[in-house]
Amino acid sequence: MPRPAARRPDQLRPLSFKRKYTGSAPGSVLVKAGRTTVLCTCCVDSKVPDFLVGKGKGWLTAEYGMLPGSTNTRKARDKGGKVDGRSVEIQRLIGRSLRAIVNLDALGERTLWIDCDVIEADGGTRTASITGAFVALVDALQSVKKDLPAGIAGVLKDSVAAVSVGIVDGEPRLDLEYVEDRDADVDMNLVMTGSGKFIEVQGTGEEATYTRAELDSLLALGTAGIEQITKAQRATLGKAWPLA
Amino acid sequence: MPRPAARRPDQLRPLSFKRKYTGSAPGSVLVKAGRTTVLCTCCVDSKVPDFLVGKGKGWLTAEYGMLPGSTNTRKARDKGGKVDGRSVEIQRLIGRSLRAIVNLDALGERTLWIDCDVIEADGGTRTASITGAFVALVDALQSVKKDLPAGIAGVLKDSVAAVSVGIVDGEPRLDLEYVEDRDADVDMNLVMTGSGKFIEVQGTGEEATYTRAELDSLLALGTAGIEQITKAQRATLGKAWPLA
Amino acid sequence: MPRPAARRPDQLRPLSFKRKYTGSAPGSVLVKAGRTTVLCTCCVDSKVPDFLVGKGKGWLTAEYGMLPGSTNTRKARDKGGKVDGRSVEIQRLIGRSLRAIVNLDALGERTLWIDCDVIEADGGTRTASITGAFVALVDALQSVKKDLPAGIAGVLKDSVAAVSVGIVDGEPRLDLEYVEDRDADVDMNLVMTGSGKFIEVQGTGEEATYTRAELDSLLALGTAGIEQITKAQRATLGKAWPLA
Amino acid sequence: MPRPAARRPDQLRPLSFKRKYTGSAPGSVLVKAGRTTVLCTCCVDSKVPDFLVGKGKGWLTAEYGMLPGSTNTRKARDKGGKVDGRSVEIQRLIGRSLRAIVNLDALGERTLWIDCDVIEADGGTRTASITGAFVALVDALQSVKKDLPAGIAGVLKDSVAAVSVGIVDGEPRLDLEYVEDRDADVDMNLVMTGSGKFIEVQGTGEEATYTRAELDSLLALGTAGIEQITKAQRATLGKAWPLA
Amino acid sequence: MPRPAARRPDQLRPLSFKRKYTGSAPGSVLVKAGRTTVLCTCCVDSKVPDFLVGKGKGWLTAEYGMLPGSTNTRKARDKGGKVDGRSVEIQRLIGRSLRAIVNLDALGERTLWIDCDVIEADGGTRTASITGAFVALVDALQSVKKDLPAGIAGVLKDSVAAVSVGIVDGEPRLDLEYVEDRDADVDMNLVMTGSGKFIEVQGTGEEATYTRAELDSLLALGTAGIEQITKAQRATLGKAWPLA
Amino acid sequence: MPRPAARRPDQLRPLSFKRKYTGSAPGSVLVKAGRTTVLCTCCVDSKVPDFLVGKGKGWLTAEYGMLPGSTNTRKARDKGGKVDGRSVEIQRLIGRSLRAIVNLDALGERTLWIDCDVIEADGGTRTASITGAFVALVDALQSVKKDLPAGIAGVLKDSVAAVSVGIVDGEPRLDLEYVEDRDADVDMNLVMTGSGKFIEVQGTGEEATYTRAELDSLLALGTAGIEQITKAQRATLGKAWPLA
Repeated sequence: MPRPAARRPDQLRPLSFKRKYTGSAPGSVLVKAGRTTVLCTCCVDSKVPDFLVGKGKGWLTAEYGMLPGSTNTRKARDKGGKVDGRSVEIQRLIGRSLRAIVNLDALGERTLWIDCDVIEADGGTRTASITGAFVALVDALQSVKKDLPAGIAGVLKDSVAAVSVGIVDGEPRLDLEYVEDRDADVDMNLVMTGSGKFIEVQGTGEEATYTRAELDSLLALGTAGIEQITKAQRATLGKAWPLA
Repeated sequence: MPRPAARRPDQLRPLSFKRKYTGSAPGSVLVKAGRTTVLCTCCVDSKVPDFLVGKGKGWLTAEYGMLPGSTNTRKARDKGGKVDGRSVEIQRLIGRSLRAIVNLDALGERTLWIDCDVIEADGGTRTASITGAFVALVDALQSVKKDLPAGIAGVLKDSVAAVSVGIVDGEPRLDLEYVEDRDADVDMNLVMTGSGKFIEVQGTGEEATYTRAELDSLLALGTAGIEQITKAQRATLGKAWPLA
Repeated sequence: MPRPAARRPDQLRPLSFKRKYTGSAPGSVLVKAGRTTVLCTCCVDSKVPDFLVGKGKGWLTAEYGMLPGSTNTRKARDKGGKVDGRSVEIQRLIGRSLRAIVNLDALGERTLWIDCDVIEADGGTRTASITGAFVALVDALQSVKKDLPAGIAGVLKDSVAAVSVGIVDGEPRLDLEYVEDRDADVDMNLVMTGSGKFIEVQGTGEEATYTRAELDSLLALGTAGIEQITKAQRATLGKAWPLA
Repeated sequence: MPRPAARRPDQLRPLSFKRKYTGSAPGSVLVKAGRTTVLCTCCVDSKVPDFLVGKGKGWLTAEYGMLPGSTNTRKARDKGGKVDGRSVEIQRLIGRSLRAIVNLDALGERTLWIDCDVIEADGGTRTASITGAFVALVDALQSVKKDLPAGIAGVLKDSVAAVSVGIVDGEPRLDLEYVEDRDADVDMNLVMTGSGKFIEVQGTGEEATYTRAELDSLLALGTAGIEQITKAQRATLGKAWPLA
Repeated sequence: MPRPAARRPDQLRPLSFKRKYTGSAPGSVLVKAGRTTVLCTCCVDSKVPDFLVGKGKGWLTAEYGMLPGSTNTRKARDKGGKVDGRSVEIQRLIGRSLRAIVNLDALGERTLWIDCDVIEADGGTRTASITGAFVALVDALQSVKKDLPAGIAGVLKDSVAAVSVGIVDGEPRLDLEYVEDRDADVDMNLVMTGSGKFIEVQGTGEEATYTRAELDSLLALGTAGIEQITKAQRATLGKAWPLA
Repeated sequence: MPRPAARRPDQLRPLSFKRKYTGSAPGSVLVKAGRTTVLCTCCVDSKVPDFLVGKGKGWLTAEYGMLPGSTNTRKARDKGGKVDGRSVEIQRLIGRSLRAIVNLDALGERTLWIDCDVIEADGGTRTASITGAFVALVDALQSVKKDLPAGIAGVLKDSVAAVSVGIVDGEPRLDLEYVEDRDADVDMNLVMTGSGKFIEVQGTGEEATYTRAELDSLLALGTAGIEQITKAQRATLGKAWPLA
């Protein structure tokens, strides 16, 4: 089975960012990877959770949701105490990934709220969320720049981007779309910094297993993809890029 | 206090629709009224609720939500059984308004799911939701047209649109934006058909009261606004307009 | 279809109030409109919600419920996070209606808790709730009269009463009972002050629409009904009536 | 400390029943024991819970609640998944007590829903609930009498009544009111049949303990109280009394 | 029907305690009565509930749960706001029983958290919980002994133990196991102090009733059982026994 | 900082299994890795979830919980709709890991319920859960062996075991205990088959990042650890080992 739209196995889907997508949140980015579309907003709250009060340190937390119309079959909203375990898992991943590149001590007593809401889902919504959330985070930090003693560069230790890789029909492929993800034997999400270090590696056999050689080929494919995504983030941020 | 952006009291904000905003739901419309932005999707489900099974009749239901980044202060998501009473009230209004112009008997055993998710909130999100949901509904019906014995025209008895009016600084005004809504003494939402009949009149004194004369002036202002909105719906739908 | 019990279209059901129905709450009124029976209590709490602490201002909030045995088919209690949207909508209406005639600044840092619990439901439970809650509110204010700097007259700007009107079989009717409400094409709830001003107009087409002429006839019918209800409130309160 | 209102230690509070208190539920009894007031309704549902479907046997279940205005300090409603452990415990007791005198096999595939809602609470609400629920149960059975093969007498094996006893200031007392209950060292609820058998004995030391002699004196006091309550039930039911 | 394992009617099942079963909680006891196995832990928290703050007094609270694999048919976990009424009732009983022998004034501002989690259920889990919780409580108090002004002896007024008794096949029996409990006509739980006083008597006819003579025989049987259980508690605690 | 108890960096903690720990569930294993203690039970249900009914295929699902006394600071139970995101994430991991080695088609229409309840937590509870759950799964399959057309060997494609590795003080270490886990810069959980294939790799920088070389060293360390754990599983299962 060749890839949809004649993509090469190591080719990303078209990736785009619309910054300042709305006027209400200080960071607000619409990220698209192929048809997958996520609205990433970042709000700054001048309070911190109870366990951090008085420690002079900030916090970053993330939430993830899918709009009901984002999938081909309508996705019911969480209601009345029901929990969507997949969403819980994803939002914890997004939060950890961004905290890994943020110097919370340099943030002051503030909470950064990342919200990633999926407008259209075609595979790779969690990785697009992380990639877009970094851009929204930078824009949100611009809005409080004057209150950061060490500036934005003091808060951000590195950039962060994410991508999925997987083995479909025995072939390692980069940036799976939904029909590939559904059929993949192995599915891996990579979260890496702009300087090429790992933050998170999550490789899962879907009722299947994989060898060390397969693991290595996926890591190589993903690492190359992250490099391209980092370039795209840098391009959209232009002068706002804090890591020059 | 003059209106923001030098609007006349009887002037609507710029109104626009982007149809087929996403590819996942059969009806998917991004409606904008000034800065207020709502994504209205309409999905078609081949099941009906239990109380209608076997009656050969359809159903239409609506849900409404605000994305966390849609307001200047981040709006927390509903979680763990907590209920947002305002959202409940609004989604019931949206559902009733659309059911008033739908012939459920001509729909067959199907459920139309309307979802209105606020991307940016600047006043009038419930009325923009209704106005946009009608356009999404028409597009969704196109996707099942061949299965409707009486066609789309048999399902839709009329079009529906909504607008807010209110008394601010003693002046009746059309289509309030947030800063006006916040200061209004009286706030009224009108839902009307394209043929000029009322579906819903909800006029509320906000810790205030109003006279019959004030009520009449608001009804006149709103009726004129609805006419313009109906024209805009007709323009965006073009040949898909089912009521010619 | 003539009205049940040979009522005239503009005739209220027999309306009665039992004040001090229980000894536990300072305001406690059993209101009956025909068979519809609601227990309205008003408690005074010496705290205010967080958003008002330290502002020297009071608050009023309302809750509404139906006892399981109040309807012909037993009504299940809310449990485990399930939400009854209709109850949410009604309790918000009751709260707004009473706040419209209360001067919260003259109340001091107190919360007035209105509870309306339906003992028997035969149509018009939300309007009976508002009508009865005003009487309970007056009695509750008596219990803290000595602590109100401007007295009860300083707290109450006006009285409030409510009634339903509707179009049944093409005929505008006042104070619908359940079998009429069920068959009505248009259903309107009016909340007005004793001095004849509007607080809330909620007119809904039930899978139907209505003309401006029909709207006007309903407003006239309701306004006349409110006048009679206000007289009944005044009669039951006697010397406790605070608005002479 | 003498008893309030100069009651003798072995004297019940004035006990009254209003049958057919509302018209909506087939059994509907307002029971009063002194100031304690409970509305007991009994509805008949033609379905049984899943575990009984197809077994030709009926079920009886009970729910208990307190209206917010029933206590001197307003009692918050259960919401959003919060649980009132005391209510859960009481409604399980009411259900067990009534099932003990009902022949579920003779009921057919029906569910009897008992609802006990406290209008005013002055001690002994759970025992008044059981006592009143029996009367409501008899009235509800009258409404389906013609469908019971063995008649009401076949369904009811006995009558049931309940009373509280306790040790206050070292003195065993019958039918405690709130101020006594609050100060009691030992609190016991007795549920017994009209023929003098025990259904439930629940004796609790409140941060205290009690001897066998004290237990015996409480059992004697309660047994005598139940006899009087049974007579009152019989008197209110008159010809409806099914156990002659 | 003779008893399983040829037990005499007045014979306890083999009873054992493993103290310090885990290293994480200061009190941690695995109690076994026949196959019934409960892990009782007691933690000490240096805070008290809001209603006790600043009163110089402590609190004790208990929770009870069953592991999913503890019963022959897997027991679903509580989730999303669903409530297990039986668990609520049992944990309230455990808390009351232990508070009856604890001098909360001598505890200081501390909360003792008792957790009873059923590893295997074969009847009598609530009584085993109470019996084991006392042992865990003593061990937990050892861990804060130096901070108790009046020592452990000042905190504990007495010991506490519990046992079930019931009438099966017309025969009063001590310490029912599951198959007996299931078939019992009367089921009674006794909670008593080491000095032979009652804390709680809960006797329930299971769709049945019982006479005063039967009640007396059950009380005698249970009282003798508690004496043996108290001896076993004393034996396992050895020098830690605080009541010599 | 040397390792606690003078462990070598590549040394596992003492690992033990108690099979048939309780009599109620067909698979019931107490697994210990150092002080970390988890009770893993496996129940067999003769039903499958709705999405699998009629497909002749089985299902396996897992739940994970921590007893309140399992940690040094008491862990509150989930209640009233609150969700513990970490537990959700872990139980999803356990379920996926076991499904990877189970041939669901050979299971017939049955659900295997895995429950992992932590008795004492000292790091590595999720990996101990997976390791122990495999043993419980084998025992549970023995109980339905005669109903499995292809036998246990047809259901199990391989064995599964898990271990944690991490970088502490710059040193890669195997099988972290709590104090190491708390201080680790990188934390990785490996789930592998007995034949040395990967099922899941989850490597997380804890507010930190890691290089490819560090990733490789952790994979090597973990792979060696899994081999030893597989041997221990084989030893405890003896003849029940299904994969010879």
